[in-house]
Amino acid sequence: MAWLESPAQTSTALVRAATPDDGAAIRNVLLNSDLFGISDVECVDAMFVETWERPQPDGYRWLVAERAGAVIGFACYGPESLTQDTWDLFWICVASSARRQGAGRALLQAALHDALMHHARLMVIYTSSTPPYAPARQLYAAFGFKHVATVPDYYRDGDDLNIYWKRLR
Amino acid sequence: MAWLESPAQTSTALVRAATPDDGAAIRNVLLNSDLFGISDVECVDAMFVETWERPQPDGYRWLVAERAGAVIGFACYGPESLTQDTWDLFWICVASSARRQGAGRALLQAALHDALMHHARLMVIYTSSTPPYAPARQLYAAFGFKHVATVPDYYRDGDDLNIYWKRLR
Repeated sequence: MAWLESPAQTSTALVRAATPDDGAAIRNVLLNSDLFGISDVECVDAMFVETWERPQPDGYRWLVAERAGAVIGFACYGPESLTQDTWDLFWICVASSARRQGAGRALLQAALHDALMHHARLMVIYTSSTPPYAPARQLYAAFGFKHVATVPDYYRDGDDLNIYWKRLR
Repeated sequence: MAWLESPAQTSTALVRAATPDDGAAIRNVLLNSDLFGISDVECVDAMFVETWERPQPDGYRWLVAERAGAVIGFACYGPESLTQDTWDLFWICVASSARRQGAGRALLQAALHDALMHHARLMVIYTSSTPPYAPARQLYAAFGFKHVATVPDYYRDGDDLNIYWKRLR
């Protein structure tokens, strides 16, 4: 599966399509994110295993960001079933020690590029309203995503679901 | 798996937990719904198969509504991963010939009852903004669900995602 025709080099990170061997590195990114915990790791693990065990054209797509040969971040995205070309960004995460150096930006740019190449019409992102996710929300806004909807107390009381939305065509 | 302690009898429909044998009947309900098509059938099929092949405590839960021994509707719901006791109603559908006789109401009531028994905090429903789904939206409103969010053009241009929300505790 080739989710990028060629690796995308930025000044700070190399973004490439993930391979089945990247599972442990992706897990480490989550565990070193200061954002996600073991239940998130289990959820991402299940999605990663499913990607390779039951490959489908509309399945999950994975990118990793590398610096100096080490995986420092990843993104998981893909088409949403039962929609006409709406894509979801399910996960984007950079290890906390590697933040503020453009890896998240490079991952999001590559995911958008891939979605555009596959005629995506919309991209939608679901994220938390809480302060630790403020940098992520700022990243989405910087890429032209609009905060179009809020589901109150979705994750837990006081932690809303914020839905970001960008039209691609 | 017992999703209802005992079948819930209403004046018009008997609601019971689904068994693996109900797959074909559920497919028929969708195909006779005048709402859903083959891609929906494939999606529901995959969820149904997953339920029985890889049972998990937080997996999908299924109810069917019967009249005169025939399955006329079904619901699929369950806890949403990575949330604190938020449950999703993924599917609720009644065959078009059996509508307006309380089967949808009985299914939703039974799903809410099951969720409450399992300490659900919120229930969330994702549905289409288009006219064919107006009766479903009215049903949700009648049960106290609030339309809290809209994602424009989510399903396709002109077909928004409407999110309904109800606090259970």
